[in-house]
Amino acid sequence: MLRKVINMKIDFNKLDAQKLESFQGGLKHFDANIYNDGINKIIRGKLIPGASIGLHTHDSSSEIIFITKGCAKFVTDDVVEYVNEGECHYCKKGSSHTLINETKEDIEFFAVVPQQ
Amino acid sequence: MLRKVINMKIDFNKLDAQKLESFQGGLKHFDANIYNDGINKIIRGKLIPGASIGLHTHDSSSEIIFITKGCAKFVTDDVVEYVNEGECHYCKKGSSHTLINETKEDIEFFAVVPQQ
Repeated sequence: MLRKVINMKIDFNKLDAQKLESFQGGLKHFDANIYNDGINKIIRGKLIPGASIGLHTHDSSSEIIFITKGCAKFVTDDVVEYVNEGECHYCKKGSSHTLINETKEDIEFFAVVPQQ
Repeated sequence: MLRKVINMKIDFNKLDAQKLESFQGGLKHFDANIYNDGINKIIRGKLIPGASIGLHTHDSSSEIIFITKGCAKFVTDDVVEYVNEGECHYCKKGSSHTLINETKEDIEFFAVVPQQ
């Protein structure tokens, strides 16, 4: 009998550790472990001091970013927001954002990019 | 001039602290701060020792849960998985799951339930 098992545990340490240079036109590089099934992109990310993810638009998805370490500067639709550990940034579908590490500490986060 | 601002920061401490008794038929209660715009449910959750979220099916959504503290037991499609701090549980659309705290420590997590 075929067993239906479609749920899963994601151990980020077992995913490829990607070092994405100048991601979306940003500065330095973006450290990421990414699971992507075409429906949801599930990310563990890190930005070192001075690194950034460049401005980009979410046309067919949204993005939810939970900051787990550090303080992230987001510029979204011309508004600046500082998001600290334990807080969340929500980029709605159709919106644009950039993430910048202006601090002297790493920023770590979990993110989901659901296709919607 | 009307300014388009659709992105946002979510400070969970400013959302209602909900104590959801026997959530989805589970044991004890589920502590949650939830933002919900009908497109994405964005959750900061906690389960005390002995608490659980009952078995339920995601018919029109998926769910991504990042464990930030403790060890969570998930039963999904008859498979048991233990998910630790820093790991993730992914419940795909159409699938069922339950979350149980069998430990003596709180479980804390961030979750997204995207409508898909």
